[in-house]
Amino acid sequence: MEHQKELSTVERLDWLRLIRSENVGPITFFQLIERFGNAKDALAAIPELAKRGGRKKPIRICAKGMAEREMDEVLNFGGEMIAACESTYPTGLKHIADAPPIISVKGQTQLLKEDIVGIVGSRNASAVSINLTQQFSLALGRGGLVVASGLARGIDSAAHKAALNGGTIAVVGGGIDVSYPKENHPLQEAIGERGCLIAEQPFGTQPQARHFPRRNRIISGISIAILVMEATPRSGSLITARMAAEQGRDVFAVPGSPMDPRARGTNNLIRNGAILTENADEILQELASSRGHRLSEPDQPLLPFNTPRVPDEAEIQDARPRILSLLSPTAVNIDEIIRLSELAPATVLTILLELELAGRIERHFGNRVSFTS
Amino acid sequence: MEHQKELSTVERLDWLRLIRSENVGPITFFQLIERFGNAKDALAAIPELAKRGGRKKPIRICAKGMAEREMDEVLNFGGEMIAACESTYPTGLKHIADAPPIISVKGQTQLLKEDIVGIVGSRNASAVSINLTQQFSLALGRGGLVVASGLARGIDSAAHKAALNGGTIAVVGGGIDVSYPKENHPLQEAIGERGCLIAEQPFGTQPQARHFPRRNRIISGISIAILVMEATPRSGSLITARMAAEQGRDVFAVPGSPMDPRARGTNNLIRNGAILTENADEILQELASSRGHRLSEPDQPLLPFNTPRVPDEAEIQDARPRILSLLSPTAVNIDEIIRLSELAPATVLTILLELELAGRIERHFGNRVSFTS
Repeated sequence: MEHQKELSTVERLDWLRLIRSENVGPITFFQLIERFGNAKDALAAIPELAKRGGRKKPIRICAKGMAEREMDEVLNFGGEMIAACESTYPTGLKHIADAPPIISVKGQTQLLKEDIVGIVGSRNASAVSINLTQQFSLALGRGGLVVASGLARGIDSAAHKAALNGGTIAVVGGGIDVSYPKENHPLQEAIGERGCLIAEQPFGTQPQARHFPRRNRIISGISIAILVMEATPRSGSLITARMAAEQGRDVFAVPGSPMDPRARGTNNLIRNGAILTENADEILQELASSRGHRLSEPDQPLLPFNTPRVPDEAEIQDARPRILSLLSPTAVNIDEIIRLSELAPATVLTILLELELAGRIERHFGNRVSFTS
Repeated sequence: MEHQKELSTVERLDWLRLIRSENVGPITFFQLIERFGNAKDALAAIPELAKRGGRKKPIRICAKGMAEREMDEVLNFGGEMIAACESTYPTGLKHIADAPPIISVKGQTQLLKEDIVGIVGSRNASAVSINLTQQFSLALGRGGLVVASGLARGIDSAAHKAALNGGTIAVVGGGIDVSYPKENHPLQEAIGERGCLIAEQPFGTQPQARHFPRRNRIISGISIAILVMEATPRSGSLITARMAAEQGRDVFAVPGSPMDPRARGTNNLIRNGAILTENADEILQELASSRGHRLSEPDQPLLPFNTPRVPDEAEIQDARPRILSLLSPTAVNIDEIIRLSELAPATVLTILLELELAGRIERHFGNRVSFTS
């Protein structure tokens, strides 16, 4: 399978079925594609893999009809579905470890191929910060950048509104048709026409708390840089900033007085290496050298479509207990597991793949896994 | 001559006469001591050196009676004069390139040997910043640090007042007896009793604009770290921060909103490597490793009291025109002059010494000199 190709309708349907199947997350998805060459063969293989991982009852495969219905709903809504191997998929997003295999999009999809900067911040933003966000967003747009955010209250909404003319992308936490908060429905509609909407979750999904960190990794993933306007400690904006840093994106942060609790998060980011920023010109200048370059010259293969060595059954049987003993309810880095097990990486990854399909482990940001049962 | 010694009254008088003589700045002072071994012989030599540097009229040597009167005035005021080679001189200050050879001090002089942190900021400070300064100053005192500042309006005064119990040192721009601004006279008096006053300028001197950067280098020089509370661009606080950085001191800066012009200077310091700081605990923690160490183990000879090679007259006559042609009214680094002249450093330094005594060049912060005539 090639690194980049346009999928046929049938192939796209198989991709959608695979990612919508039980216990299949983005990393497992791409490992399966890598191993079986395509989604159709992966779909056929996962019941057996899950069983080997210790699954008793059969794994739930997404039915063809269900995937077809989701595709129709997105099309009827005026959107489309794009797979990670396709040319219209956001370039930056392709390069993150857990890229969503399929996204729903709606609106000016050409914005996805431009240089994007994510703006994030508190929902409960101060008036000064709302005003400053509008200034940043407008000026970044004038500087030729598309502004991405998460369509939340406060900073997100201010960033989107000021960028509607310059170009804005909203990544929503639930389905592409679901507005959260409700009051942002008109803004979401406007962005679906004049800007661009992105959703990873199935059409009609009401966003859950666990969806927001996943949404945030897409905001940083499509962006060449993230600007954090204000952030209380432990806020979602800080998660986005951390993801952005781990994804190799520039992180800009606006400082504030120690007397202002909403500046605590951004000040802390600056202390830890984020670029202190007082106006959009500084961001434009800082990014000037890297812009364009990133779009035209991906620095790593788009997707890991090499055919790897698959360890044989005896090897896996032998190794499985050792891996199980290394796992715990506390998330641990996979590289650490490989190192401690003294096993070949391919063996460890295969065992983890089977355990995930069996629903026995969960993947976490930062290449970590934990035991679920 | 030894690196450290207590001076006799006669020797201290010679030191005072030498530094109070025309065209003798701190760097020239120590070069003369280095070359002639003591102040008495240096005093005897400078008329001839100035003449060689191109001086037509005789150089003004500080009369013995004048130095005696200054010493008496300081003693009558309740203060004393300390030379840079003496054990009571502030340890950190000894190590800066242009340490004042003699300072007047008054009050609890044992504070000069403790770990000192300088707090600087705007004269025209906001209420929020005044309040924050008091918090920092009080907490640093509780953490065992002595707080130094410049006894100006605003931040300086707030820092001193909050540190009166914990220990505070005020470095004044003029004579030790002169209050500037006048309204700070009671505070200066209180610090002269319960804290400690330092002055480099002669007793009775009204401070001039040019004295303040010199005052600032003493604040950073006696301190192990400088905390900048707020600063507009091009303010004196930024000069202090730059001096502190060049002197190898830690620079801490308090961030602020881009909407607050008084935060522009501190934000810029942070952008350029200063440590972003929101409370005193961070400073105490950061300094914990270096405290004590700096006091007990000076990392370089206290003063350059080696006897250097003195170039012979013919060599100097030959080289002088080349040095003169490299100088200009724009200040240039002495290392650069040495490099471009392709002459031995001792030759270049001797020529510059003579030119300075002749009043033909001026020294600037950062080891730079410029032409004055």
